[in-house]
Amino acid sequence: MPRADAIRRIGFLGTGIMGAPMARNLARAGFSVTAWNRDRSKAERLAADGVVIASTPASAAADQDAVVVMLSSGPVCDEVMFGAGGAVAAMRSGSLLIVMSSIPVETAKAQAQLANRSGISYLDAPVSGGEVGATAATLSIMVGGSVEHVQSAAPIFAAMGKPVHIGPVGTGELTKLVNQLTVASTIVAVAEALLLARQGGADIARVREALMAGFAGSRILDLHGQRMIEGTFAPGGPAKYQVKDTAAARSTATELGLDLPMLNLADALFGDLVAHGGGELDHSAIILELSRRNGLSPEEYAPLTN
Amino acid sequence: MPRADAIRRIGFLGTGIMGAPMARNLARAGFSVTAWNRDRSKAERLAADGVVIASTPASAAADQDAVVVMLSSGPVCDEVMFGAGGAVAAMRSGSLLIVMSSIPVETAKAQAQLANRSGISYLDAPVSGGEVGATAATLSIMVGGSVEHVQSAAPIFAAMGKPVHIGPVGTGELTKLVNQLTVASTIVAVAEALLLARQGGADIARVREALMAGFAGSRILDLHGQRMIEGTFAPGGPAKYQVKDTAAARSTATELGLDLPMLNLADALFGDLVAHGGGELDHSAIILELSRRNGLSPEEYAPLTN
Repeated sequence: MPRADAIRRIGFLGTGIMGAPMARNLARAGFSVTAWNRDRSKAERLAADGVVIASTPASAAADQDAVVVMLSSGPVCDEVMFGAGGAVAAMRSGSLLIVMSSIPVETAKAQAQLANRSGISYLDAPVSGGEVGATAATLSIMVGGSVEHVQSAAPIFAAMGKPVHIGPVGTGELTKLVNQLTVASTIVAVAEALLLARQGGADIARVREALMAGFAGSRILDLHGQRMIEGTFAPGGPAKYQVKDTAAARSTATELGLDLPMLNLADALFGDLVAHGGGELDHSAIILELSRRNGLSPEEYAPLTN
Repeated sequence: MPRADAIRRIGFLGTGIMGAPMARNLARAGFSVTAWNRDRSKAERLAADGVVIASTPASAAADQDAVVVMLSSGPVCDEVMFGAGGAVAAMRSGSLLIVMSSIPVETAKAQAQLANRSGISYLDAPVSGGEVGATAATLSIMVGGSVEHVQSAAPIFAAMGKPVHIGPVGTGELTKLVNQLTVASTIVAVAEALLLARQGGADIARVREALMAGFAGSRILDLHGQRMIEGTFAPGGPAKYQVKDTAAARSTATELGLDLPMLNLADALFGDLVAHGGGELDHSAIILELSRRNGLSPEEYAPLTN
């Protein structure tokens, strides 16, 4: 394991909407970054910031102190990291593998076992904060792994946002799921609140203002409540991804022997929104699904301002 | 209607846990306050701040520029305001009646009609912020009524907290209900999130810290999440009152032709908590009900720290 001050060279796999600004921030913080992306053109935009572009995952991962992974899903991570010509076989023993994608808890644990067999340390470190947070280096980073490895990775995380070490491998991904289930349920709660207020004749912009000052105040009420008031449902976070998250959280809950009724309800409601054509809308559009269920016509609910 | 700068004399009905500090703050702000309370001893503690103590609701309300009501429920308000020897019959025509109790929307509208018949103006202005907010004069005040009357009452509200004018009579009470339903659903969401995280092996204090930094951040996660982590369920807001609030919100939703599934679920879950003996616990104890439903013994969930 490299010490914190010994990590200079980083391989970066996956430079999409989130990965590109994260890799750029690492380069700007002084790390020597070599990036690979399946669509090479997306990686090449980073060359202006001194990022070296690699042709294969293996060449990006070879001879690095650490490899950061920001690919789109668990199966894609598995393929790029452990498939034929994959990155992990090219990594040095004693180096550090940091998976920042949102993937299932069990997938993270299995990846850690495979990496450890090659003498490679593993952290799961998914993020919250979106493209804005990735660009501004203000991501909330939820980290699972050993204390020693988290300390080694501290300068890497500091270049991208604020890490919180949650517990052993897998608990970073668990926390991301827990974050998503909290967001999903809170968005439904805010949507029901504003719908009730509006149907009762209140000015919902003022309702939001009054609620923000008390116990009902939340980031969701602030940001997504404003979207509901304005009727602006361009994503943001598309509803179809919200369903993926609630399904993953249900699956993890089931594995742990837990039945969580509000999670189940949020999952069903977002599923209905997608089934009725709202999959590409921002998840705050759940207020449209609640309106539809209650027989309100689109003219009655969009926009929701009085 | 008195102009704002013309309101000097205030009658105050109901000096309980909330009403006493509110009346005290009005007196300290320079208003001439005459208070009545059914249990006179509770009102007499205010004499040190220059509050005059009245023996009947009518004598507290007579010859005032405005009367503020902070009694415990809609029926109690109706009795004290409109019953035999009630306050409203003693009020001057042209004066202002401000009901700050949390009462049903329809009750507020009916009270306004009755008051208006005697030439008395009416505002519904329930509050959020609890005893702490009442004492510190930082209450969130949700006001329903005409613009003119809200402007007249501005100095009164300023002595107790921050008013937001929502819309016509009844929308103050509607907003309070909407606040309570948002709180109820969000507490359940946070409880499910922390339970899933804990059963998955995460340090839930760190989960809360990580979630507070992102879209899942809320006053509920901050304050009630901390209670769940520490297992400190002394109220605060007792679960039995939460059920009263969710039932009232359901009733108003039904009157408006709305079926709100998450409100229904929160109402059922808090009802279960009360049915299983948790009525006197803080509403954050909903995590105990969720634990019980999932077959976790008290030893496994209290305290919830790892």
